[in-house]
Amino acid sequence: MSKPKVFEKPTGLKDYLPGAVAKLRKIENRVLDCMDKWGYSQIITPTLEFYDTVGVASSTLDRKLFKLLDQNGRTLVLRSDMTAPIARVVASLLKEESFPLRLSYHANVFRAFEAEAGRESEFFQTGVELVGDGSSEADAEVIALAIAALQAAGVKKFKIAVGHVGFLNGLLHEILGDCLEEQLALKEFLLNRDYVGYRRWIQTNLTNKKHIEELEGLLRLRGGEEICAQAKLVTPNHLAQASVQHLCEIWDVLEAYGVSEHVLIDLTMIGDFSYYTGMTFEGYAADLGFPVCSGGRYDNLLTQFGRPAPATGFALKTTRIMEVIDKEASDEPYRILVLYDLAHREEALKHANEMRSRVGVRVETQRVQTESEVEAIELKAEGSYLFHGRVYEDIVPFV
Amino acid sequence: MSKPKVFEKPTGLKDYLPGAVAKLRKIENRVLDCMDKWGYSQIITPTLEFYDTVGVASSTLDRKLFKLLDQNGRTLVLRSDMTAPIARVVASLLKEESFPLRLSYHANVFRAFEAEAGRESEFFQTGVELVGDGSSEADAEVIALAIAALQAAGVKKFKIAVGHVGFLNGLLHEILGDCLEEQLALKEFLLNRDYVGYRRWIQTNLTNKKHIEELEGLLRLRGGEEICAQAKLVTPNHLAQASVQHLCEIWDVLEAYGVSEHVLIDLTMIGDFSYYTGMTFEGYAADLGFPVCSGGRYDNLLTQFGRPAPATGFALKTTRIMEVIDKEASDEPYRILVLYDLAHREEALKHANEMRSRVGVRVETQRVQTESEVEAIELKAEGSYLFHGRVYEDIVPFV
Repeated sequence: MSKPKVFEKPTGLKDYLPGAVAKLRKIENRVLDCMDKWGYSQIITPTLEFYDTVGVASSTLDRKLFKLLDQNGRTLVLRSDMTAPIARVVASLLKEESFPLRLSYHANVFRAFEAEAGRESEFFQTGVELVGDGSSEADAEVIALAIAALQAAGVKKFKIAVGHVGFLNGLLHEILGDCLEEQLALKEFLLNRDYVGYRRWIQTNLTNKKHIEELEGLLRLRGGEEICAQAKLVTPNHLAQASVQHLCEIWDVLEAYGVSEHVLIDLTMIGDFSYYTGMTFEGYAADLGFPVCSGGRYDNLLTQFGRPAPATGFALKTTRIMEVIDKEASDEPYRILVLYDLAHREEALKHANEMRSRVGVRVETQRVQTESEVEAIELKAEGSYLFHGRVYEDIVPFV
Repeated sequence: MSKPKVFEKPTGLKDYLPGAVAKLRKIENRVLDCMDKWGYSQIITPTLEFYDTVGVASSTLDRKLFKLLDQNGRTLVLRSDMTAPIARVVASLLKEESFPLRLSYHANVFRAFEAEAGRESEFFQTGVELVGDGSSEADAEVIALAIAALQAAGVKKFKIAVGHVGFLNGLLHEILGDCLEEQLALKEFLLNRDYVGYRRWIQTNLTNKKHIEELEGLLRLRGGEEICAQAKLVTPNHLAQASVQHLCEIWDVLEAYGVSEHVLIDLTMIGDFSYYTGMTFEGYAADLGFPVCSGGRYDNLLTQFGRPAPATGFALKTTRIMEVIDKEASDEPYRILVLYDLAHREEALKHANEMRSRVGVRVETQRVQTESEVEAIELKAEGSYLFHGRVYEDIVPFV
């Protein structure tokens, strides 16, 4: 195997230069501050976890987990999300704390290197988990907080699509009975948004006209508040009815929050159906083909860590949000370069330090020895210097 | 091999609960802000790098590198510091940018799991690199910035010990000639601060009285400004003399910064001698047995990445600094719990959102259905609730 070139990085990994970091940090700080305002306390967990605990409990597909071995032959994973690690902490270090627990995080998460170019192996997520509250108020709270967090991040136009895995499970059970294979086939079509394949499967495999109608009718269950009423008419199945009822309640709470204008109901959206147990949602920004946040209720996860409890939450896809945020001109600090000769060193360094105490000012110092050195710097300072937008707006030559 | 228990984490890895995270975040934000004020722009690099590039170039001992294999059999490392990754970026993505380059970072770094208990495998560092400036002003700048950063972090009492690997290299070469093995033996004693072993080695292996005196005299070269003058008298060796001269100049610049009261000269301190090429320094906080920061000049590293340039920098050991910082009472937000019944939901949620816009206020909401529920919450709210210091100071029952 040939050695990598000195400048190479492993597949799917990225350097963030100062302009990008400034943007990422601004999103991170504003979103975490917003979450803090809503009562969510930040926690940090390790980058590495055991595969047998957090790895298998995570919602990430096994083949997408980034696995490695420790020196004792145990399989580790680089964390693929923060939900499973937080469940571990809630059931161990925080096991004496009473519910509800509101926790937030900002973290880099990992996926196994993929052959396909362009897929990121490491990226940032910022999110919350609300543990120990199974009410529709809790579900509405995390949706309303996702909306507030996207706004805090600076995302101007977006929609949140809300669904419920229980509705689909109920409908499919009503029609297909216990045949999990057939249920799975239809769910895969929906997950991949392959509605042509979904319709073809129904026409090919079903004969009962009412069943065909109900399943095709599902595809129309996307829209506003009216979808709740329509969905109630689709099937008498108890689970489906209870799920729609829960969704109606969530909608009511979102109206009370005054944010329902950002929300759509989409009963064809099922998210990660092996993981979520109730409401699921995804946020879409204008002009972007992929979700900027996703979340939902996962009432079974905590059981795997020995402290059964309902839970709901979401993660912003922070790395993606960077792409929809404009850089604000006001973010650029006022840059000052203090040039000095030996005789004025103390005076210059003192002056620089005084200026550093002002807000929005960035001060560099440089000793110069000749007049031509000063001229060269002044020349360079006319354009941008280090990174785009970096201009010496004020040169204070002490020479 | 038995499976890990559900609450277990791999060796040397840690969860940070909200109180600790608040502290860590405060240090991180204040220190990065300080570095920004001094003209340092933050960058982020991947958690994983190739062993053959960044791994071998890092100052971490090979056996302490956290290694793993990618799917093509290439060896990767979890980064052990940020200096080598930043050198890679300076020589690649930033190769058109002119010097000096001022870059900062806050990152988690890794060490291989160790058998010894208590050693951390993942911890945080916050630091800077000043690339492309070989002057004593540049060395003094990073020392002065380390002092400003420790103060920004809230470390009250500390001392910075400054040395120079060139002085020791010159002295040892003068006495031991090209015998690297003997030089290494003495350096190991100094690195481990084993002064008894150092003296014994000298008495056992040397006969020239002047040489014995010079090497023993080295141990006395710790103190204030006067050490520079004393060191000049120890050996006429050219490298040693030039190194002391450089150190004297650094001292002069630190006096001009007005920070020399925090600085000691320590010519017995050699840092990582295979890596540093000039000035090295370490910061010690009162009551703490290990350094809270370390740094120095490394003029050979950039050559390994194809863009030869002098460079100097330091890293704060952020995880350790957490231990010497007191939690400030003013950091605690004012916590409010808004209780409401169904009839007052809209009013309550609106009220909560209005309060969230105030500085230093944190607002949670909870729907209650019975009077006894309210009483139970009021009872719990009298003590601390979720994390230490969390008290509901203001209950606004809408019921």
